[in-house]
Amino acid sequence: MLDLLSRYKTVRTRSVSLCVPLTPEDHAVQSMPDASPAKWHLAHTTWFFEAFVLSTLGQGVFDERFAYLFNSYYDAVGPRVDRARRGMMSRPSLPEVHAYRANVDERIAHVLVEDLLDPVAQNIAELGLHHEQQHQELLLTDIKHALGSQPLQPAYRSDLDRSALGEIVPLGWVGFDGGLVEIGAGDRSFAFDNERPRHRVVIEPFVLARRPVSNAEVLAFIGDRGYDDPRLWLSDGFATAKREGWRAPLYWGREDGRWLHYDLAGVREVDPAETACHLSYFEADAIARWAGARLPTEAEWEHAATERRVREGNWADDERLHPRAATGDHLCQLFGDVWEWTGSAYAPYPGFRTLPGALGEYNGKFMSGQMVLRGGSCLTPRGHVRASYRNFFAPGARWQMTGVRLANDRGAS
Amino acid sequence: MLDLLSRYKTVRTRSVSLCVPLTPEDHAVQSMPDASPAKWHLAHTTWFFEAFVLSTLGQGVFDERFAYLFNSYYDAVGPRVDRARRGMMSRPSLPEVHAYRANVDERIAHVLVEDLLDPVAQNIAELGLHHEQQHQELLLTDIKHALGSQPLQPAYRSDLDRSALGEIVPLGWVGFDGGLVEIGAGDRSFAFDNERPRHRVVIEPFVLARRPVSNAEVLAFIGDRGYDDPRLWLSDGFATAKREGWRAPLYWGREDGRWLHYDLAGVREVDPAETACHLSYFEADAIARWAGARLPTEAEWEHAATERRVREGNWADDERLHPRAATGDHLCQLFGDVWEWTGSAYAPYPGFRTLPGALGEYNGKFMSGQMVLRGGSCLTPRGHVRASYRNFFAPGARWQMTGVRLANDRGAS
Amino acid sequence: MLDLLSRYKTVRTRSVSLCVPLTPEDHAVQSMPDASPAKWHLAHTTWFFEAFVLSTLGQGVFDERFAYLFNSYYDAVGPRVDRARRGMMSRPSLPEVHAYRANVDERIAHVLVEDLLDPVAQNIAELGLHHEQQHQELLLTDIKHALGSQPLQPAYRSDLDRSALGEIVPLGWVGFDGGLVEIGAGDRSFAFDNERPRHRVVIEPFVLARRPVSNAEVLAFIGDRGYDDPRLWLSDGFATAKREGWRAPLYWGREDGRWLHYDLAGVREVDPAETACHLSYFEADAIARWAGARLPTEAEWEHAATERRVREGNWADDERLHPRAATGDHLCQLFGDVWEWTGSAYAPYPGFRTLPGALGEYNGKFMSGQMVLRGGSCLTPRGHVRASYRNFFAPGARWQMTGVRLANDRGAS
Amino acid sequence: MLDLLSRYKTVRTRSVSLCVPLTPEDHAVQSMPDASPAKWHLAHTTWFFEAFVLSTLGQGVFDERFAYLFNSYYDAVGPRVDRARRGMMSRPSLPEVHAYRANVDERIAHVLVEDLLDPVAQNIAELGLHHEQQHQELLLTDIKHALGSQPLQPAYRSDLDRSALGEIVPLGWVGFDGGLVEIGAGDRSFAFDNERPRHRVVIEPFVLARRPVSNAEVLAFIGDRGYDDPRLWLSDGFATAKREGWRAPLYWGREDGRWLHYDLAGVREVDPAETACHLSYFEADAIARWAGARLPTEAEWEHAATERRVREGNWADDERLHPRAATGDHLCQLFGDVWEWTGSAYAPYPGFRTLPGALGEYNGKFMSGQMVLRGGSCLTPRGHVRASYRNFFAPGARWQMTGVRLANDRGAS
Repeated sequence: MLDLLSRYKTVRTRSVSLCVPLTPEDHAVQSMPDASPAKWHLAHTTWFFEAFVLSTLGQGVFDERFAYLFNSYYDAVGPRVDRARRGMMSRPSLPEVHAYRANVDERIAHVLVEDLLDPVAQNIAELGLHHEQQHQELLLTDIKHALGSQPLQPAYRSDLDRSALGEIVPLGWVGFDGGLVEIGAGDRSFAFDNERPRHRVVIEPFVLARRPVSNAEVLAFIGDRGYDDPRLWLSDGFATAKREGWRAPLYWGREDGRWLHYDLAGVREVDPAETACHLSYFEADAIARWAGARLPTEAEWEHAATERRVREGNWADDERLHPRAATGDHLCQLFGDVWEWTGSAYAPYPGFRTLPGALGEYNGKFMSGQMVLRGGSCLTPRGHVRASYRNFFAPGARWQMTGVRLANDRGAS
Repeated sequence: MLDLLSRYKTVRTRSVSLCVPLTPEDHAVQSMPDASPAKWHLAHTTWFFEAFVLSTLGQGVFDERFAYLFNSYYDAVGPRVDRARRGMMSRPSLPEVHAYRANVDERIAHVLVEDLLDPVAQNIAELGLHHEQQHQELLLTDIKHALGSQPLQPAYRSDLDRSALGEIVPLGWVGFDGGLVEIGAGDRSFAFDNERPRHRVVIEPFVLARRPVSNAEVLAFIGDRGYDDPRLWLSDGFATAKREGWRAPLYWGREDGRWLHYDLAGVREVDPAETACHLSYFEADAIARWAGARLPTEAEWEHAATERRVREGNWADDERLHPRAATGDHLCQLFGDVWEWTGSAYAPYPGFRTLPGALGEYNGKFMSGQMVLRGGSCLTPRGHVRASYRNFFAPGARWQMTGVRLANDRGAS
Repeated sequence: MLDLLSRYKTVRTRSVSLCVPLTPEDHAVQSMPDASPAKWHLAHTTWFFEAFVLSTLGQGVFDERFAYLFNSYYDAVGPRVDRARRGMMSRPSLPEVHAYRANVDERIAHVLVEDLLDPVAQNIAELGLHHEQQHQELLLTDIKHALGSQPLQPAYRSDLDRSALGEIVPLGWVGFDGGLVEIGAGDRSFAFDNERPRHRVVIEPFVLARRPVSNAEVLAFIGDRGYDDPRLWLSDGFATAKREGWRAPLYWGREDGRWLHYDLAGVREVDPAETACHLSYFEADAIARWAGARLPTEAEWEHAATERRVREGNWADDERLHPRAATGDHLCQLFGDVWEWTGSAYAPYPGFRTLPGALGEYNGKFMSGQMVLRGGSCLTPRGHVRASYRNFFAPGARWQMTGVRLANDRGAS
Repeated sequence: MLDLLSRYKTVRTRSVSLCVPLTPEDHAVQSMPDASPAKWHLAHTTWFFEAFVLSTLGQGVFDERFAYLFNSYYDAVGPRVDRARRGMMSRPSLPEVHAYRANVDERIAHVLVEDLLDPVAQNIAELGLHHEQQHQELLLTDIKHALGSQPLQPAYRSDLDRSALGEIVPLGWVGFDGGLVEIGAGDRSFAFDNERPRHRVVIEPFVLARRPVSNAEVLAFIGDRGYDDPRLWLSDGFATAKREGWRAPLYWGREDGRWLHYDLAGVREVDPAETACHLSYFEADAIARWAGARLPTEAEWEHAATERRVREGNWADDERLHPRAATGDHLCQLFGDVWEWTGSAYAPYPGFRTLPGALGEYNGKFMSGQMVLRGGSCLTPRGHVRASYRNFFAPGARWQMTGVRLANDRGAS
């Protein structure tokens, strides 16, 4: 339990640290229905421990109204505030939310020190830490959207590493034989329910790009009028691009003939060598078609990623909070930098079982209308992601730290 | 100029005082597109003095980006942030907005002390004070909406006077002969352009209710299923009521068989004797029809109000911030308590001329789709309103401090 | 009664004649929620006689389901099909609707020949004829919209008079002294309830343009970038123009540097000399401001129109179905050609009383959000309109045969 | 070619026959954006032969404006009328569309008799026949929606077979071992591009229900308050059900305590024994979860269906146009009766290649946001469907003839 307590303290402290650069108003703003205020993230992750861990001991709650305010989507727990109106909650105030965190942290520390949790509750506490790490990434993507879409476009932090990392590497390919292989998480270590069970799939021979698509390729796609050519796009994708007026990745803007972009350090010129980000699935798919390639399936991606070193990537802990330029001639940036869209719709694995109780809503009920992403990003905490890790977003989403890695049938490219 | 300076300081200080009970997040929240954040009101009223008064002296601006952020609707001044996204601006922060106010206040004080303003600029400064008083009322209505429509429904202030004021007075009538009379503001003292010119109108004999409609009458209207009876409503009104699910005035809710309402002091039971508020024009019109009466025209209202004492009403300065119960058997509550809907569409008076330059947009361009209200309310600063004062809102608006006074043709009721 | 019967036959026959050029599908199409299919107009006007006249004799109905289908907006009569879905009713078929008309016509003829109607029912029958004439104009405006907004833009009739009518007349002014005058319909002959009672109003001295605005002026307004200049527009008007992409009057299109327009005879080049039409109130108001003028009030208009000869205008019976060019140097085209927007919101006259029963919904419940138009148009049947006649539409409506006559305060222009 | 000509005549004649029961207005009505008017189907299928077959011979077109009117979604061919406004096209009239069909039929007959088509064009003509069969089913589903959603709910045909077919069969299961199997179309006979290439997949042991879900099960689901229980639904599904007010399958209504439904023969009481239809994917998924089961994957479905006799089903040619009750204790109704939702998102098979040229848009660009259905329905022409045939619709679509077959992991149910 002391190991769990140590990790609990580390993870919980990091959430608060992420908010240090924010003003009180920054904590409260919700720039679109899909995003949540930072204050809400701080409270919701706390509620998770109170509602699912402390409740197993019959403990009362800090404030009985908070279940309504900070439940995200657990229907089995009860009603909740409309997601699109999270930014309307100026109360509880930021000091009250910090008091809520302190109260729950103290109670959790107590039950861990005293070893009061049964194994099921320990597992839920473990889940709660992974859950909080997910919200740490969401907090960064959401605050980026809030700051980046308001007129003054303030930087989140002005001290982030923005050193250039050299020349762009040519886009080469790595071949894989595929065959009858296994994917999915085994039983030994922590994994979300949607990564299980481990199961067999057939993979035909394929090639995978050595690195993700860079801004240089995106600029070439734009130069080829890719955003105006319906033949490159899925039908829904082209309709979305037209309706929303997409002319470039999110956060890009054109000024005096130059492409600028906003990132968490402020506005600067687009660096062609950097790995491209803030692309939707629809754009990823169109760029792949323009390149004569396709997106990898999630099975192909996981097959290629197995045995790669996960921790070496560019993670949130590296304090860059933006993708690097790819370097080297090996298969690089699979982990970290950008989440990579796959061509696989988010669906249950054969034999998938949800968690029991309210936590059964954690992943399963979102298995429609979303595409799988793999590999984590520069906004993900180091250590959070595995080769079998499945992230998922709607195909039109652009505010996540998402990018593109090309694939192809072997012999096709 | 020293009189103007004195009033400048008084008015400007009051805006800041109104915000003292608010948290930083309360300052920033925008609960619907028609409402603005308190922080925006503080900045916009400041920008008004900078853009229209200090600019006449060729002075530079505090921050050149603020014109885009805090221009409300002056097209002649330049582009501006989309009104519905004012709540997205977490920056400038509250301290920065206060610094902006201090800077402009200092500069205005200087030019007034040094008597640097020409007569036109002095008039604009005078206009700026009336403008700021209007925004003081909007600030209160908007923060009431922001606090009252979030789940915790916090009180704005818990120290407001909530003493009950006795029994309800029967609804009697006062008769007027009308005839060929004059309405509108004369030339001697301050008035907005839309109150001019003073002009002749014909008024047929009419009666006016001694007091506004009280909650008792609204409860009777509800009891008669007034919200469900299309015969009582304008066609657009009934469609609006159905679409928005109106079952009672805004801020009312039913709990355990009792009607509660939210006001700036929190939630309490509806007091039948109090003057009813937060009714739209559509509801006012339906209640009048249900009562066998009609709304007064603005000419009737002004004719009846002329010679009445304005300052005796229940104004914001009285620290109740909610209507009282009417008392006495005379024509009462014409001024203060609630804005009274008239049956007159907001239109130019014969011979109307807008102000020159950008300030020509102050009133004239809103003369379509709105109805005139008269008399001021318990959220209006004392001294701001005149008998000729014309307020105006769309017929479906309910978040303003609006109520109903009945009228009728003489002999009809 | 035989006079009434004779007029009944004339009016009813004309409705059917208007539909002769239409295919069965043309009869059924509804091009927007505000328009109705021709077949619906044929059935609804028939239902009016059945529901309000024959019902007074206790007669049964042709088909009990038709009340739901062909009731327009009479809540007191019962529920009805959603207005926006009138075009979804492929049934009853056109032959069935004609059978319905024949059945009601036969029954009405019988009761008139046998003199079975009491005076109230006779008055309703009279109202029914005026009602049907209103729908004859709506039928033409609606079918024009249906044909003109589909890709092939077929002509309604190719045999309409399209002779040019000479040079454009300069826009001169006629002065009026105004004073304390009376407007509204007296008691002797037929008028709608909204034209009564006749009452006194004060009119200040004013001038009225000799002719309506022509296409030449509209072209000049466009050339001056009038559609892009917010200073010329009401706030709601400019927002509407931008949202709906207005660049010219409805039915105008630009091709190879020329302005073409669609009218009921097909597509042809815009004739600068013709009186302009299909302008909304918002455009009328903006054009007036651009011209340094304003729109007349409805009192001014009626005061000027009284004593003018009504029947001489260009009416639907003249088989042009489009405005002419104005000719002569007198006050011309007051009646016929185009409905003229006034600056008056549609509101009850002092002492207004609705008709008893369900027919009380005929006019009164639309008295919000609409502006008054006067004078009739080239799509109005000759004899339908009076000087006191009040038409009304929302300020953004463009599909009616609407135009602009300028006015001004005397001495202002 | 004579075989092709013979089939051409058969297929083309059938489209016209399907429209015989329709009035001219029925041909033109479009009851929602996803549906098309019958007249449009008649013209679009004709345009397909003109644009893709006759064009290869350099032949001119019947009317050059028709490409704009009757192109469905081929961006490479040019612009087209907005899909949601197909019902606005009262012109060309029905006789003109029949003349268009006759003209193209004559020209196609000529080129087939004279053997003027090269092999590629012959294949496209073959594709055109399968395309027209698809539109025959769409024509029936769309006209059902048009007739069934208007107030009179007229029958399409009153002479359809509506004999009851006995008692409901218990829902038993058939087991399959799965393994490494092949699915997809081989190269020998006609198949759409999306059915290819044939490829290997891994299927774990599973069971499949002997028959589709019947109305009896749907009634039990309703009785269990299934439409109100969020735990049974995908998150998007529950939101859709609430937003659209789903309480039962499409076309069901409750009257006097009985469930009625509309079908192409009119309104009648729901027969519990009949196979349920007009269920969305979201409902199918919820019903499966309620039943403790799941939907089959498309690979499982195809694996089970291979070797089954396709032609024995209840097809459109059987003149019932509604599902039967399932009979017998074998795996029944796999083909015909209802399209069966699978749990598989519509995606390209490994190695998928689109057709060259504009026909590459036939299937590939719809591969996002849709779920695969299998097996054909009682509205599908006999002979049109294969075991490898992939139909696809959005998960919220209910107007297609869609039903549910349950599956499960072996040992799980």
